[in-house]
Amino acid sequence: MTPQHGAPAFPLGDGVIVLEIAFCRKPFAIAMSVESTLFLPELREMLAENNQAELKEFCEALPPARTADFMSGLTPQEVWTVLQHAKLETRAEIFTYLDHAIQVEVISTQDLDQVAKLISELAADDRVDVLNDVEPDIVKDILSRMPAVERRDILRLQAYPEGTAGSVMTTDVAKLSEHLTVREALDELAHQAGDLETIYYLYIVDEGNHLQGLVSARQLVANINKPQRKLSDLMEKELVAVKATDDQEEVARKVAKYDLLAIPVVDEERRMLGIITHDDVIDVFREEAIEDAQRSAAIAPLEQGYLRTPLLTLSWKRGMWLVILFFAGLFTAFTLERYEGRVQTWPWLVIFLPLIVSVGGNSGNQSATLIITGLASGEVSIRDWARVVVRELMIGLLLGSFLAACGFIAAWLLKEEARSWNTALIVPCTIMLVVTCGAMAGALLPLIFKRLGLDPAMMSNPFVAGLIDILGIIIYMNVALWLLQ
Amino acid sequence: MTPQHGAPAFPLGDGVIVLEIAFCRKPFAIAMSVESTLFLPELREMLAENNQAELKEFCEALPPARTADFMSGLTPQEVWTVLQHAKLETRAEIFTYLDHAIQVEVISTQDLDQVAKLISELAADDRVDVLNDVEPDIVKDILSRMPAVERRDILRLQAYPEGTAGSVMTTDVAKLSEHLTVREALDELAHQAGDLETIYYLYIVDEGNHLQGLVSARQLVANINKPQRKLSDLMEKELVAVKATDDQEEVARKVAKYDLLAIPVVDEERRMLGIITHDDVIDVFREEAIEDAQRSAAIAPLEQGYLRTPLLTLSWKRGMWLVILFFAGLFTAFTLERYEGRVQTWPWLVIFLPLIVSVGGNSGNQSATLIITGLASGEVSIRDWARVVVRELMIGLLLGSFLAACGFIAAWLLKEEARSWNTALIVPCTIMLVVTCGAMAGALLPLIFKRLGLDPAMMSNPFVAGLIDILGIIIYMNVALWLLQ
Repeated sequence: MTPQHGAPAFPLGDGVIVLEIAFCRKPFAIAMSVESTLFLPELREMLAENNQAELKEFCEALPPARTADFMSGLTPQEVWTVLQHAKLETRAEIFTYLDHAIQVEVISTQDLDQVAKLISELAADDRVDVLNDVEPDIVKDILSRMPAVERRDILRLQAYPEGTAGSVMTTDVAKLSEHLTVREALDELAHQAGDLETIYYLYIVDEGNHLQGLVSARQLVANINKPQRKLSDLMEKELVAVKATDDQEEVARKVAKYDLLAIPVVDEERRMLGIITHDDVIDVFREEAIEDAQRSAAIAPLEQGYLRTPLLTLSWKRGMWLVILFFAGLFTAFTLERYEGRVQTWPWLVIFLPLIVSVGGNSGNQSATLIITGLASGEVSIRDWARVVVRELMIGLLLGSFLAACGFIAAWLLKEEARSWNTALIVPCTIMLVVTCGAMAGALLPLIFKRLGLDPAMMSNPFVAGLIDILGIIIYMNVALWLLQ
Repeated sequence: MTPQHGAPAFPLGDGVIVLEIAFCRKPFAIAMSVESTLFLPELREMLAENNQAELKEFCEALPPARTADFMSGLTPQEVWTVLQHAKLETRAEIFTYLDHAIQVEVISTQDLDQVAKLISELAADDRVDVLNDVEPDIVKDILSRMPAVERRDILRLQAYPEGTAGSVMTTDVAKLSEHLTVREALDELAHQAGDLETIYYLYIVDEGNHLQGLVSARQLVANINKPQRKLSDLMEKELVAVKATDDQEEVARKVAKYDLLAIPVVDEERRMLGIITHDDVIDVFREEAIEDAQRSAAIAPLEQGYLRTPLLTLSWKRGMWLVILFFAGLFTAFTLERYEGRVQTWPWLVIFLPLIVSVGGNSGNQSATLIITGLASGEVSIRDWARVVVRELMIGLLLGSFLAACGFIAAWLLKEEARSWNTALIVPCTIMLVVTCGAMAGALLPLIFKRLGLDPAMMSNPFVAGLIDILGIIIYMNVALWLLQ
């Protein structure tokens, strides 16, 4: 959510600039300019001697995000006690900046009437995020202590599945009628400013709450000297809107593409449900980046962080892929079995086997990643396949020949079996071929997966690796056969 | 940059919702509801018959971002011709949504007086992005045709190295004196609204242009009925500010952390240089995500996209890592050489060698990625190392034993040499150990790299792979020796 006062908070991780201009007369100024945790002892002392005054100052003097920083390391109980010294509004703000795990624990363990009050103060999207990880019975109990309106709002938001627009939207949005004048709109905003997620986009809805258009605060201000102008004259009718059921990644892409501050979320009948703001979009992108990284390492994306995911869930999300890759790997065993004769005749070949397999894997992994990221950012499209092939072929040959040279020297030094004209060529020729084929395969597989409507990020890298291992063995063994007979 | 009118554009990729409410009477409505490129023929026809009216409507009727979409596929020359039918302001807006490559070509090939006019209209940060990829001589020529103020502004921004705050900031920012009243501030904004990147944060500077504080449009609107209030009463003095030389990723993190709309960029003396807005921050996050993916695939991050990077640059950025990994891989050869005797005594062991190596690599890669992403998102810290070890140990044992079972069956079926009590245990025991050690190593190496102040993302995955290959071979050979003697 966006902090209630648009004004940003106080930066201390990187004190220098700012320290001069602020807080230097405050007792914890020095502590603050360095690592947050250094302030923990002072904080614990205030708690121990229950120093109302200092605790109050601590809560109110600092911007909420910083206060939250300094509280990291406190137990949920301590956090709660400290928060009691803040006004309810500030308390809610500090709370939103606390670590998610702490938020959940506080809510699960503290006095529910107080908690219910706190939750009512939170932004609609934030409170749902937290409640989703709290015991259902406790949630029910908390909801029963909240005003009916907010209870219904929470239940409605909770209904949207993880990863949909509905699950990240907030309902604190400025909805106005097109019949209002600029002046009336400004007054209305002045009145609501405190409770809204953003006052910078005002959405125009009809009596049936159907989204009609948008007026930006920018337009209101630009027309401040024409106070009688109707919003209907100003409003932008052609809106980007998303459905509550849309994928959050799609939504985020759209906000990024059109450089929006917020995007409206509507239902099938285009009734206004809420908005998703720029800061939530940033969170979505960061989430998705992590998920992609996990997919390309053959891990089914985790809903929570690494440390918070239960061991069994984590094992399952990794295990299922390890097993798939294991069976892919089995093919290398089958392949090698076919060549067992040759291996026994020229056992020294074995020595370079893992090297050759890994060289191919690395070059394939590079191409795959470049194409996958290219597809994701939209720079590469399936139509470019021919250009991709040419590029990879040339790069493969270039890098392949250089590595082949290294391989030649290595083999020469390592084994005298590899010093006759024919044996000496086995390793370099193989490396050359493996690197080139690896690059081509690595680049083409993601394109093929994309074409088939599969997610390149999820399948390609592990798949590429497995395939290239086999490829490498086959190439190696046949090059050897060809040169030795 | 943020579009001049805060109002968002027209979403067609996902027509459904929106088509009903707009454009249905426009000639290209149907074309628009499907793939943008389908409209290309009509557009080319307009150009062919030089249909002024329709081209004009095409440029002006649609929101700029959409117009740009529909022009994708046109040659730079055609793009330029179409743009001539738009008002200069609209032209500049459409231009900012064009593909970067097209922008560069247009600027490099068209009439420089016209181009100079266009560039003067662009947002300060956007025009620098484009000019950075245009031939220096052409840039010089263009600059010489621009007003001195803007020329200086461009040269100043160009001076900041890629990846710094200065290189992504814009100088179109609202700077006001603290002595203004709310009313005066609003009038000033109403006056400037058109030219500013954002009117939602107003920065308060003194005569020396030193950053004093911030007043948000939210605060102005909230005080609209106290028009005589001074900005100095409202202004937030404790600002997050960044230096022009700060790393853009750091800046982006800060904006995300404090949920800011924009962050001010200052020099050493805290003089206001410009701002970085939320939409630029989103771009930074997307860039960084791609760079991380490339690093973890052992590619030195590309400045431009895959297709736009020259072949030699691309080969170098991949090659240097391939070579490093090749020499890491050589150790597998050295290791195997030490065990050559055993391989010759029990040649069937070779068959499972690549499988065992890859199983270890996969499990290590999974752990490494989980820890790297955990470190990046701040969920995992070096202090958690003990928890990490315990988790990886347990997961390793769990997955290891399951895969060992699969390995036992596979070995049993594949080779009758692996059917006596002792030989039958070689493959499963090895897999068990390799998976567990792989998981531990994969998790610990990023933590160690982090501790050493190195970038975990860049080093760990490839490094892990190489190390685990060797580990796998050693374990395999010794388990075999131990069980067979």
